[in-house]
Amino acid sequence: MRRVAICGLSMCKVGNHYNKSLRELFAEVTLDAMESAGNPNIDAIYVGNMSASEHTFQKNMGALLSNSIGLNSTPSMLVECADGSGGAALYEGYKAVASGLHDIVLVGGVEKMSEVTRGENRKIGSMAIEQDYEAFHGLSLDGQFAIIMRYYMHHYGVSKRHFALFAVQMHKHATGNRYAQLPYEISLEDALNMQTIADPVTLFDTAPTGDGAAAVIFCPLERARSFTETPVEIAGAGQASDTLALYDRKNILTFKATTEASKIALESSKLKIPDIDLFEIHDSYTISGFLALEDLGIIERGKVGQAIEEGLIDSNGSFPTNLSGGLKARGHPMGATGVYQAVEATLQLRGEAKKNQVDPAEVALIQNSAGIGSLVTVHVLKRV
Amino acid sequence: MRRVAICGLSMCKVGNHYNKSLRELFAEVTLDAMESAGNPNIDAIYVGNMSASEHTFQKNMGALLSNSIGLNSTPSMLVECADGSGGAALYEGYKAVASGLHDIVLVGGVEKMSEVTRGENRKIGSMAIEQDYEAFHGLSLDGQFAIIMRYYMHHYGVSKRHFALFAVQMHKHATGNRYAQLPYEISLEDALNMQTIADPVTLFDTAPTGDGAAAVIFCPLERARSFTETPVEIAGAGQASDTLALYDRKNILTFKATTEASKIALESSKLKIPDIDLFEIHDSYTISGFLALEDLGIIERGKVGQAIEEGLIDSNGSFPTNLSGGLKARGHPMGATGVYQAVEATLQLRGEAKKNQVDPAEVALIQNSAGIGSLVTVHVLKRV
Repeated sequence: MRRVAICGLSMCKVGNHYNKSLRELFAEVTLDAMESAGNPNIDAIYVGNMSASEHTFQKNMGALLSNSIGLNSTPSMLVECADGSGGAALYEGYKAVASGLHDIVLVGGVEKMSEVTRGENRKIGSMAIEQDYEAFHGLSLDGQFAIIMRYYMHHYGVSKRHFALFAVQMHKHATGNRYAQLPYEISLEDALNMQTIADPVTLFDTAPTGDGAAAVIFCPLERARSFTETPVEIAGAGQASDTLALYDRKNILTFKATTEASKIALESSKLKIPDIDLFEIHDSYTISGFLALEDLGIIERGKVGQAIEEGLIDSNGSFPTNLSGGLKARGHPMGATGVYQAVEATLQLRGEAKKNQVDPAEVALIQNSAGIGSLVTVHVLKRV
Repeated sequence: MRRVAICGLSMCKVGNHYNKSLRELFAEVTLDAMESAGNPNIDAIYVGNMSASEHTFQKNMGALLSNSIGLNSTPSMLVECADGSGGAALYEGYKAVASGLHDIVLVGGVEKMSEVTRGENRKIGSMAIEQDYEAFHGLSLDGQFAIIMRYYMHHYGVSKRHFALFAVQMHKHATGNRYAQLPYEISLEDALNMQTIADPVTLFDTAPTGDGAAAVIFCPLERARSFTETPVEIAGAGQASDTLALYDRKNILTFKATTEASKIALESSKLKIPDIDLFEIHDSYTISGFLALEDLGIIERGKVGQAIEEGLIDSNGSFPTNLSGGLKARGHPMGATGVYQAVEATLQLRGEAKKNQVDPAEVALIQNSAGIGSLVTVHVLKRV
């Protein structure tokens, strides 16, 4: 297996890009990523996207998007795992280069969510959950996370306040990220008084909907310096799945796919959690962020609120987490999010994260999840 | 890059499986494939499917289907490229093993089309084409192939009769395939007198709609004999894309992605077309089959009808093609078709094709296409 590096990247601000179509968003960002690597020939493209077939009735997205950047012969394929599509696309791109089958691979994530109603977006998001037995009876993705959050609060004796603290922290980080959708602070009071989505999940327990695109270029590590002065290696990659249905879980206070995927990624990178300088985790809901921190082994179970109050995940804490603002404040353009994480972590490792730069920044871990952790992909990135 | 073999396989009859859900179809076939390989531990799953999100509102299909066979931790991912999904899933599975990242990979294709109206199926099939500029104005997938077929007939001075001959040949082959959806002969007269779908495309120029599932197990070649006495190697694999939009094509009488993908696959297998003993090609429409035969370099352009009359693609011809009955008569469960091709070709190479067995059967080439050849995947399979 060859060693693989990121040698180019780009992203756009997450938000309501009413004046840009799906293919325009993708094209702008991927062309920019290719330029950042000196415009190498691209051998293959992997695309992460969740909802183009609902929003624009478009299947065969791979070909649409490769055409949008004038690459009309390059094999281009859509990888779909709901909001874990970005991480899965990264994983496929990594394999393609590691296998030796392709040399230069473009991985792009793109989503347009701004041009349908919020209700429509919730419905599309709920397609990530088990349809025949759960959604059929009226459960939604919001409802699933509400069940988990309620049980977490009951089991650990934890109040809404802890979750609100997480949302506040995410927004604090986002103020230093010019690509974030919501780059402003929120008060704890605001966070505690938002309208209910699915009790106890309130508006500030969920990620906003928005449009976005992000892209990275993979190449063999040995060639990386011909494309960039600051290559970053994919030191490890792992993926695991879990039951799709919530009722099928043995323990709903853990997404074991996160633990399994990170174990694989850390083992292949020969690193442990204390070696990691920064994390980008999948806080599609505040409870999702809590479980990620626990399942990765960063914080003891039930203690996330405390840890946040102690500054553990702050930029100058022991485990800087979601310096981008996370899904809550950077935003969550469903299929693109996993690729945003890769871009943000790489900028940190290159020392280019500006206001949010942490130090040291040698190793990063990014975790992207589908639905209720039905598929989780973890990558460990390392400065070369 | 490691060498990769197929060490297990299964498929079900293509048809209207009203009594089986999507996950049941998938589970039955994949469990059977796993059993055929002696029930090895599966490291990863790739799924080809086009329309589950339209038929059952289900995204995150990877997790649904891995759960259906009790593999609740195994990473499982959906690959979507319209009716090229099966071939693309094979390609991803191949890369996963060739890279060394996974050892035993299950690739399954599954589609349920029988429980919606024919109109709904045509609409879903049309999601494979360019939406914003072509479908928006009323063009459908049927319409695109009608344009190509009409121009072919005009350009080469060829009548409907040649296309009808192809359909007749497909049905002739299908009579020997107990998994085929339509395993009966048709007369040239019938084929010439079918109702029009989109002139000049008539009913017998199109593939039927049906449910189906097929699966193969990949493993490193060096370990194949611990799973099966009859391993078959993936000697070469190639993929290429083309413009999504028909209007963007420079020449509509060729799907150049077929030529490019087969070139890559043949080069890596160090073989040429005359070395190939049998072919499974993507005749989603008779004209699609014609172009495949020409783009692969099997038959000179414009001469497919003649070649069929001369028996060239018959089981005892020089280039036995679609002994399964092809998409026309074996059937075309959209996302599963590419995997059916792999199963059928492998059975031939193992000498297990019964009534349709060709001899020699040492090397096979399978070609799977998305829409109007917007993405084509070609694999060369070789008896070990």
